[in-house]
Amino acid sequence: MTWIDIAEDSPFGADNLPLGVFRYGDEEPRIGAAIGDQVIDLAPVASAHMLDGAQLFAQPTLNAFLALGRPAWRATRNWLLDLVRNENDRDTVEPHLIPQSAVTMQLPFEVADYVDFYASEQHASNLGRLFRPDSEPLLPNWKHLPVGYHGRAGTIVASGTDIVRPSGQRKAPDATAPTFGPSQRLDIEVELGFVVGTPSALGTPVSVDAFEDHVYGVVIVNDWSARDLQAWEYVPLGPFLGKSFATSISPWVVSLDALAASAVPLPAQDPPVLPYLAGKNLVNYDITFEVRLNGHVVSTPPYKDIYWSPAQMLAHLTVNGASVRTGDLYASGTVSGPEKNQRGSFIELTWAGREPLLVDGREHTFLEDGDEVTITAWATTAGGTRLGLGKVTGRITPA
Amino acid sequence: MTWIDIAEDSPFGADNLPLGVFRYGDEEPRIGAAIGDQVIDLAPVASAHMLDGAQLFAQPTLNAFLALGRPAWRATRNWLLDLVRNENDRDTVEPHLIPQSAVTMQLPFEVADYVDFYASEQHASNLGRLFRPDSEPLLPNWKHLPVGYHGRAGTIVASGTDIVRPSGQRKAPDATAPTFGPSQRLDIEVELGFVVGTPSALGTPVSVDAFEDHVYGVVIVNDWSARDLQAWEYVPLGPFLGKSFATSISPWVVSLDALAASAVPLPAQDPPVLPYLAGKNLVNYDITFEVRLNGHVVSTPPYKDIYWSPAQMLAHLTVNGASVRTGDLYASGTVSGPEKNQRGSFIELTWAGREPLLVDGREHTFLEDGDEVTITAWATTAGGTRLGLGKVTGRITPA
Repeated sequence: MTWIDIAEDSPFGADNLPLGVFRYGDEEPRIGAAIGDQVIDLAPVASAHMLDGAQLFAQPTLNAFLALGRPAWRATRNWLLDLVRNENDRDTVEPHLIPQSAVTMQLPFEVADYVDFYASEQHASNLGRLFRPDSEPLLPNWKHLPVGYHGRAGTIVASGTDIVRPSGQRKAPDATAPTFGPSQRLDIEVELGFVVGTPSALGTPVSVDAFEDHVYGVVIVNDWSARDLQAWEYVPLGPFLGKSFATSISPWVVSLDALAASAVPLPAQDPPVLPYLAGKNLVNYDITFEVRLNGHVVSTPPYKDIYWSPAQMLAHLTVNGASVRTGDLYASGTVSGPEKNQRGSFIELTWAGREPLLVDGREHTFLEDGDEVTITAWATTAGGTRLGLGKVTGRITPA
Repeated sequence: MTWIDIAEDSPFGADNLPLGVFRYGDEEPRIGAAIGDQVIDLAPVASAHMLDGAQLFAQPTLNAFLALGRPAWRATRNWLLDLVRNENDRDTVEPHLIPQSAVTMQLPFEVADYVDFYASEQHASNLGRLFRPDSEPLLPNWKHLPVGYHGRAGTIVASGTDIVRPSGQRKAPDATAPTFGPSQRLDIEVELGFVVGTPSALGTPVSVDAFEDHVYGVVIVNDWSARDLQAWEYVPLGPFLGKSFATSISPWVVSLDALAASAVPLPAQDPPVLPYLAGKNLVNYDITFEVRLNGHVVSTPPYKDIYWSPAQMLAHLTVNGASVRTGDLYASGTVSGPEKNQRGSFIELTWAGREPLLVDGREHTFLEDGDEVTITAWATTAGGTRLGLGKVTGRITPA
């Protein structure tokens, strides 16, 4: 299939070809494609092939490429597929293969607006049970619209960035006043992020059918969360400092075209959704995450049962006329499956800290200084082949 | 004081000199300073004066200038003050004065992250009474921290941009399911916006004392709001589509240096705030807004009694380690005074539509198609002189 050596268990086979931004030595950061354990340095290869827009690959972010739109994305993908399949291209490509171990991956795109949804029924139900034990776990609006809110775009960081434990206000239920200090309930949120390429016009909603015209691809998102800060601040205007200190994303953006073979139908929605959220071909993806704490697997959240399609999230986000821009990122919200070991946050995995996890012989609840969390994800096709999204990782440093 | 003719009632006297971005005919948008009813075209004047960085004024946004930091902002202001005071500069400046009536003002800066606070006690109390009539109007956290949330940066628009009535879901209290349609409760929010110039580092809070190191100046903000969409969506993650369709800002950014003469002490805070929010010289500004609906004054909200200082808002926003970027905008939240005709939104002015306003002989509640809202603002010094922030305006067009 390709003249490039690829380990059988590599996330980045010859059909994947995700794009990212790498730094190699002292050279300027630029765009590469991942294949096996190597990076194709795209700018010189595209120049050698006299590709239109070859200079876009010399840029330090994917934004200009993302702005080109789906026909150009698809043409680029086809060119890349040819490069790695065609033995004739070996001479021009091979000199520009760089080991991934020799590069430092950067944030792949400059984030415009960041929206975080809340699309997993299991997760929303779990948090409802934890925060409002005396009422229905799901709030009345939850099955009528994909609940979401805006997060902080400027604190989205590259995988590998250390996460400084945030400080802030918290208040114990029986205390009369809040206290200030480092978060004692630092947590993760395992999410899938959708990267917008083609912008839309202010005042014009994006229909569910236009999802693939606007969204280029996906990344893994870890939306670090300080549960104690969040609990005290979030009524009535939603999460703020409990989330805004950092959100990590994986470095390789996997295209929807590569993911297409892993598309699965959206589970049935009941009650029926309003017409602007309805569609015949609403898509989900058969993706499974794997969460490791200090190297040990603690959870394997499945994406495919999530309640809301990413096409519905985009349609909802824009139905009031809000525009999207190149570089917008919207994330699914925490992905949790029905099994205990499929929950996408420690507040769920440890039931608010009351049921510690045993990890390598030690009890764990929320994150401690020095803890390292790595999330990997794999998409599975109907044929059983796998395609990786890579990983996002971060280590907690003291406040 | 200046060789330039300025009408006595002009918002833009010789001490103000706010910066903005104008478009003149077919020429590229670039940076100007307002004086009287004219714009000083700064790029050619700065070039003629061989000013370092003169080319920054030829840019289509203020961002590069904002990134220079306070010493450069102050030096630029001093240069501008000299230009308009010094008769000797008349020959180089006069050819580059353009009537404001001949230019189209643009969005003055590219917005990075947008945060909206909720800092007016009168406003928060009014909304508490309207939304939660059976409990305390202020929630327990309100006097301990400046409540805030992230808004949509990509839909911040220049003054004068038409506002398309947003559509979305709403649910009547007694209905079993939501319906979809154009908002029936379209509203304004009168706010003061703070424009960040100097960025901060991730992981490092900005203290209350560093406010003037980071914030360049202020604009008037109209945070258009669809109350029916907001009411149905906002629990538990806060406002989303009810706000994200558009936020208008005034075109001229008034510097903190120009505003300094209008600084007033912050009213006493009780209970005392936590140490990271405390400071000896917490500042507020003596600014009064004037809200016109179709040309008729309907409200005059005063800024000076607002509960939280902008220095506290910035300290809170960053205390968890979140960084700020050049172009960040954070707004006060709706400004409402104690009097009925000082409320900064129609939901308050008409008490959720139950007490219509009589405007030019007609009853008004929420905004109708064709309505035009214009907000002006003036700062007043201890000596009684006035300095204008200009205006922000927008007209509602049908869904």
